[in-house]
Amino acid sequence: MDITNQFSFSHSEVIQSTKEAMVSLQGRNPAIQPLLAILQVLYGKVNKELYLILKMCVFCRCACMQIVEELLKLNDDPRVHGVFLHLPSTSLTSRVLNALKPEKDVDGVTDLNMGRLVRGDLSKGFVPPIASAVLDLLEKHDAPLEGKTVLLVGGEGPLCLALQCLTERSGMVALKSHWNSNVLQRQVMQADAMVLLDGANVDVPPSWIRPGAAIICCEPTLETGIPEYIPNLCSRWLKEQQYQPWHLHSLKLQPLTPVPSDIEISRAQTPKPVTQLAEEIGLLPEELEAYGRNKAKVRLSLLDRLHSQPDGKYVLVAGITPTPLGEGKSTVTIGLVQAMSAHLKHNSFACLRQPSQGPTFGVKGGAAGGGYAQVIPMEEFNLHLTGDIHAITAANNLVAAAIDARMLHEATQSDKALFNRLVPSVNGVRRFSPIQISRLRRLGIFKTDPAALSMQEISTFVRLDLDPSKITWQRVVDTNDRFLRKITVGQASTEKGQIREVWFDIAVASEIMAILALADSLEDMKNRLARMVVGTSRSGQPVTAEDLGVSGALAVLMKDAIKPTLMQTLEGSPVFVHAGPFANIAHGNSSVLADKLALKLVGRDGFVVTEAGFGADIGMEKFFNIKCRASGLRPNVVVLVATVRALKMHGGGPNVSAGAPLPREYIDENLSLVAGGCRSNLKKQIQIAHLFGVPVVVALNVFKTDTQAEIDLVCQIAKECGASDAVPCHHWAQGGRGSVELAKAVDEAANRPSNFQFLYNTEMPIVEKIRTIARKVYGADDVELSPEAKSKIDYYNQQGYGSLPICMAKTHLSLSHMPEKKGAPTGFVLPIRDVRASVGAGFIYPLVGTMSTMPGLPTRPCFYDIDLDPVTEEITGLF
Amino acid sequence: MDITNQFSFSHSEVIQSTKEAMVSLQGRNPAIQPLLAILQVLYGKVNKELYLILKMCVFCRCACMQIVEELLKLNDDPRVHGVFLHLPSTSLTSRVLNALKPEKDVDGVTDLNMGRLVRGDLSKGFVPPIASAVLDLLEKHDAPLEGKTVLLVGGEGPLCLALQCLTERSGMVALKSHWNSNVLQRQVMQADAMVLLDGANVDVPPSWIRPGAAIICCEPTLETGIPEYIPNLCSRWLKEQQYQPWHLHSLKLQPLTPVPSDIEISRAQTPKPVTQLAEEIGLLPEELEAYGRNKAKVRLSLLDRLHSQPDGKYVLVAGITPTPLGEGKSTVTIGLVQAMSAHLKHNSFACLRQPSQGPTFGVKGGAAGGGYAQVIPMEEFNLHLTGDIHAITAANNLVAAAIDARMLHEATQSDKALFNRLVPSVNGVRRFSPIQISRLRRLGIFKTDPAALSMQEISTFVRLDLDPSKITWQRVVDTNDRFLRKITVGQASTEKGQIREVWFDIAVASEIMAILALADSLEDMKNRLARMVVGTSRSGQPVTAEDLGVSGALAVLMKDAIKPTLMQTLEGSPVFVHAGPFANIAHGNSSVLADKLALKLVGRDGFVVTEAGFGADIGMEKFFNIKCRASGLRPNVVVLVATVRALKMHGGGPNVSAGAPLPREYIDENLSLVAGGCRSNLKKQIQIAHLFGVPVVVALNVFKTDTQAEIDLVCQIAKECGASDAVPCHHWAQGGRGSVELAKAVDEAANRPSNFQFLYNTEMPIVEKIRTIARKVYGADDVELSPEAKSKIDYYNQQGYGSLPICMAKTHLSLSHMPEKKGAPTGFVLPIRDVRASVGAGFIYPLVGTMSTMPGLPTRPCFYDIDLDPVTEEITGLF
Repeated sequence: MDITNQFSFSHSEVIQSTKEAMVSLQGRNPAIQPLLAILQVLYGKVNKELYLILKMCVFCRCACMQIVEELLKLNDDPRVHGVFLHLPSTSLTSRVLNALKPEKDVDGVTDLNMGRLVRGDLSKGFVPPIASAVLDLLEKHDAPLEGKTVLLVGGEGPLCLALQCLTERSGMVALKSHWNSNVLQRQVMQADAMVLLDGANVDVPPSWIRPGAAIICCEPTLETGIPEYIPNLCSRWLKEQQYQPWHLHSLKLQPLTPVPSDIEISRAQTPKPVTQLAEEIGLLPEELEAYGRNKAKVRLSLLDRLHSQPDGKYVLVAGITPTPLGEGKSTVTIGLVQAMSAHLKHNSFACLRQPSQGPTFGVKGGAAGGGYAQVIPMEEFNLHLTGDIHAITAANNLVAAAIDARMLHEATQSDKALFNRLVPSVNGVRRFSPIQISRLRRLGIFKTDPAALSMQEISTFVRLDLDPSKITWQRVVDTNDRFLRKITVGQASTEKGQIREVWFDIAVASEIMAILALADSLEDMKNRLARMVVGTSRSGQPVTAEDLGVSGALAVLMKDAIKPTLMQTLEGSPVFVHAGPFANIAHGNSSVLADKLALKLVGRDGFVVTEAGFGADIGMEKFFNIKCRASGLRPNVVVLVATVRALKMHGGGPNVSAGAPLPREYIDENLSLVAGGCRSNLKKQIQIAHLFGVPVVVALNVFKTDTQAEIDLVCQIAKECGASDAVPCHHWAQGGRGSVELAKAVDEAANRPSNFQFLYNTEMPIVEKIRTIARKVYGADDVELSPEAKSKIDYYNQQGYGSLPICMAKTHLSLSHMPEKKGAPTGFVLPIRDVRASVGAGFIYPLVGTMSTMPGLPTRPCFYDIDLDPVTEEITGLF
Repeated sequence: MDITNQFSFSHSEVIQSTKEAMVSLQGRNPAIQPLLAILQVLYGKVNKELYLILKMCVFCRCACMQIVEELLKLNDDPRVHGVFLHLPSTSLTSRVLNALKPEKDVDGVTDLNMGRLVRGDLSKGFVPPIASAVLDLLEKHDAPLEGKTVLLVGGEGPLCLALQCLTERSGMVALKSHWNSNVLQRQVMQADAMVLLDGANVDVPPSWIRPGAAIICCEPTLETGIPEYIPNLCSRWLKEQQYQPWHLHSLKLQPLTPVPSDIEISRAQTPKPVTQLAEEIGLLPEELEAYGRNKAKVRLSLLDRLHSQPDGKYVLVAGITPTPLGEGKSTVTIGLVQAMSAHLKHNSFACLRQPSQGPTFGVKGGAAGGGYAQVIPMEEFNLHLTGDIHAITAANNLVAAAIDARMLHEATQSDKALFNRLVPSVNGVRRFSPIQISRLRRLGIFKTDPAALSMQEISTFVRLDLDPSKITWQRVVDTNDRFLRKITVGQASTEKGQIREVWFDIAVASEIMAILALADSLEDMKNRLARMVVGTSRSGQPVTAEDLGVSGALAVLMKDAIKPTLMQTLEGSPVFVHAGPFANIAHGNSSVLADKLALKLVGRDGFVVTEAGFGADIGMEKFFNIKCRASGLRPNVVVLVATVRALKMHGGGPNVSAGAPLPREYIDENLSLVAGGCRSNLKKQIQIAHLFGVPVVVALNVFKTDTQAEIDLVCQIAKECGASDAVPCHHWAQGGRGSVELAKAVDEAANRPSNFQFLYNTEMPIVEKIRTIARKVYGADDVELSPEAKSKIDYYNQQGYGSLPICMAKTHLSLSHMPEKKGAPTGFVLPIRDVRASVGAGFIYPLVGTMSTMPGLPTRPCFYDIDLDPVTEEITGLF
């Protein structure tokens, strides 16, 4: 045998080049931490030192019986990026091979990777590194390979197959043979090259070998193999961790005329599996938690992975002061994203708020958009979704139950009895729980041994001493249950006369909803939950959720709710649904986390369109002054939604109310009413956005009764009033195609300079902050505080809450506090009836006039039409 | 060219044989309905008639751009069992090929199927049928094939690859060539057979061809292909639809001593992905709706698919009368299933009830089992799970809100105003909703035109005329909130003085929970929800949820909750979690549907272990008389759980209470107390099971303080009292291994004859049914009904509810109504304070003495210890 033509692999060379490749990779990305798991059965042996120096291998040993179990663990372990099966061939059963995730299959042994290789798609699959190395040697020795014959002897399995594929793909004729084949001699004599695959030291008579033929001995062992895997693994790890460009597949829309009902449109479209959508927008499988086929929670770890990725453009959709029927901000948001994604091919993401079931079954119906601009499946959007509001309800009401139970226990037990129960002896040992130690610290008691507390300290510790008349925490329910607006609790004899007048709020008004919307991490949420003030002690000290011992349980109840829910529009664009509605009684914006995740995912040139509730005077003002302050994010454009209907109302049109037929003024052309509305409410709302330094695009949500002259007039006046642009939108009837002009206008405005600024400095006194909003935003002459409001503000200042931002609770039906005053009212004084503090959420909450925090059911609620076909499982009557 | 050696395919022959194969298949399974979808781009043309006669093909045409979208729809369409891509090769991109589900890939073109073929695993993948046919021809002509050379000319892609694999696998040497290859002549001359793959009519000079060589022309067209696919498709369809034998992979358990905390044990085990578990137990992918990685809802369509599959053995776990600490029925259930599955290799399934969050955060902690017999991840089991209880709460409280709002609207509006609002004119048209038409029918009004109703009919229709003092529907909350035990609602001025005294129940006590547990289909659940009686009109008529117009919305809110949730034990055995706890105030059994699904899945020789709450006197009695009556299922064995601790209590030991240290009697050996408990409570509970004719195995849940003498004594007396067997169980400390003896005893008892019978005939008068339970089960001398109970029974008889079974609300702490009476009390008269009817659930609900339906929080609730690490997301303090 001609020794000069015989090749094998040199360890030291390979290790050296691996090390060099690693140093270079780590230079570019210091965070690189790929990990190769090497699975061995118990009797495997290897010189570990050789590889552990690379610090990128772990050795996992297991019994033959546990291979699959071990593999499944490695599949799921996000720290492990590749798995090498260092197993005897008898263990490489079909079950074992295919238990391994193809993404972690560094040796290309799974059926999927083998199929990819066979088909010639080398982009996703791993190719066995040894096969690549053999091909390199063949090329060095035999190039050009086209037409040459290579004989693969003594092999079976993935390596042999991979070699066959790669050599044939290089134009070689590949022949396979076995040592005991009766045609071996003929084949050897024909071969231009031979690859000996099983390392058997069989003597091929030199006379058989064609002069100059290469002979490659190729015995795959751990020693030769591993160093080859590492560079592959590193580059895969890097590729995986990096921002992934989108390859969004849009769903085709064929709008019908007349436009069918929302649920019919939703049902007629088949959404992409949410796993597919996630992959299209660059989410890793481990960042997704599917809830059925159509929705999934997205893990916050994404923020760490894409930490250095620049954010996309940030677009806020707000509105003019609406009629009670709503003017379609959600449909504009969805239509805009459909236009951006499916028609202009910009990455874009909608961030919507989860609707409350109260209005869904009450007056309003669903909130998934409408017509051909919807989130689908709309019934899943409108029902339990992924349970966030239920989690909020459970957490909120656990606090409420804890408050009343604690007051009862304190009223009926001595200090000593309370202490014995709160810090019980378990197996003879008494310990404070961590939550109790936090309370002790806040009380200035730095002891950790329960026995060391003085009687005074015990009393201070065990008695929250809540003043029943100063409890600010209320129970909630996600149902429009008006009979819970004022109730008396504790009337059973077991509660020993501790009756109290309280109420229920609608669940989305819970402070926990606001915390969910404003938190920027699990830790931040947990801290905010602990800080929530539930009432005041008789000595005037605030009592927190942590004082009640319940804050850890709250964080546990909310741990899944903090992850935004991914869904899609009718045209397949991604949507995050997260946190809460009700911009009148709450802050009414989708969550900071949803926006942040989306801004990373869309990439620098993409768009995130998020929505603020009701008119810009409340939803947008809170978006800027509260949400942007909490998140640090800066918006690029405001889209201000208007309708001819609402403009006519502001221009002096008759009353519009739900359930009643629309007066003729709203059906026939009436340019003077339109002009009146534009020059009052629309103009004022544009000015409000400009107070914050952000460009405004007016989106006129066109109804079929609108005339061209009306549409033109709105757009003309809007631009006169300072809007960057003003365009009619037809998304309801046409889907994204109907909002392409809006998308272009937004794209253009987003490239203009935005000089974002807050309306007030939080260090201003509370009253001044309220007055600033009232004057500059609402157009009031001044504010007038009730004595109760004044004393509350004094108390909050004294407790150190004076520098929190302001979340006004004001009607959404007027810029003023008077729902009937349309247009842009002036010459009024804003009454502040009461002031509350949401210390966990982080805002002061003035009540402007009388605001109900619990809607009621009308005589004929939506639920009369809602039904389920028990055979097809189709829902009717949701709209 | 020697024409006798040239082959091609005959259509008529293939179609004929396909038809014959089909007739034969359909003879064996008349339900066979496989469907092949043929995907074509718009310009495709085909003689459809040829194939449509087979009635098994659909042609799906789409534009090039929509291929992937169309494929995704076909993937998800459960009616389509195979997809053939009749597409130009330029359209067969990597994205298209791999958009197709491998399971539907009849032509073996996806990478996964190609990989399977290449590796030689033909069991799961489709092989291109044309390739199989070519191989058949080669064998006919050339057998034996070993060592012969076949030349594949003019091909690329899946068919060529498949032929290469199949011929090489038959021992042939496969060479590939192109028409313009410069070695073509040499290759043709060497070949024993040639396969011409592209149908090109190229002239091979006859002189090149070796004499006797076969030449196969093989141009894959729709005409030649489809008939070949159908038999494959049919057999795959049949195989898929059939019962799948399990291949359950057990998780290895290495119990530690001392036993760590429940959450530490749970966290130390990595559960299998629920998709894998589902596949192992024979669920189809479309029957599963994953909720994250560890739990999934299972669709009820499974019951149709496995309709003809015989049920497995049905085992009920009940208990003796417990101490307030609980005696471990859940751990016994889980340990038994772990033993059956992981150690005895019997298919087995645990059916557990979803815990209420009230006790989880109150006194009891979690309910996922304990020690080494748990459902994992235990925190997901104990928290929101898949939202079923939240859905029940939402549905229950929507009914409550509707009741009070309706009473208010009726009190403040005229008949005409009510009618105008309830049946509004929409675009000039007035229509009744289907729910309103149902009400009209029940009122005997068979008109459908609103204008046709007389004033009297309008009044009858619009006025439910609920008597505020006879409303039986209450609000619920899944929190231990004792201050809601008696409250006054409607005190706000907006409710105009309609105040009412009401209460909240714990959510799991809702009638909707009982309906969820007893319904056997979506339709049954919907009908039961509509039938629920919420109160009585002033004229004495029952008013239902359907009368309120809310029943459709309830079905919509509950549509996902009806699907049981699949989880797993620590050893990887399947568990269904569904429906509700609280066998004292509710019926306290897991759902009929979970049991039915599990009985089909385990197969004839498998075991389903389901659990009934609290002592056998309540949980088991309701299991037999209510649940088995509703389901038609018959139990094979009762496992009766006892502990030395509870037996000592029944034998006269001192009081046991939560939170207080256990008296010495429970720690030291005390055979006389044990014997006393065995001969009283244990004996009586065995006798109760025997009343129903079912064999009993006593499972002694061993604690570390139990002595061998105590254990032996319990087992000895249990057998003396008629138990088929009695065995100590060590699942808490050892997992399934510790319950192997129990599993064997259950297996043996399940093979004994069971003569199941109900305790009473439902046609007996209500009082007699109550008396029968009181005497035979509880050991009472008689019952004594309050005047209120008597008059309710008269009313229910009059309304036609007299033949419903009985669901007693009785303390779980004694066989009697007196919690302090341990052992087997006699000589007492059972007081029936009140009687209620759950008409939708289908039972009469007598209240024995005072039963609280709302637990309270103790001074130091569990939540003090519950916490979340915001970085690792690990939960502490759940137990």
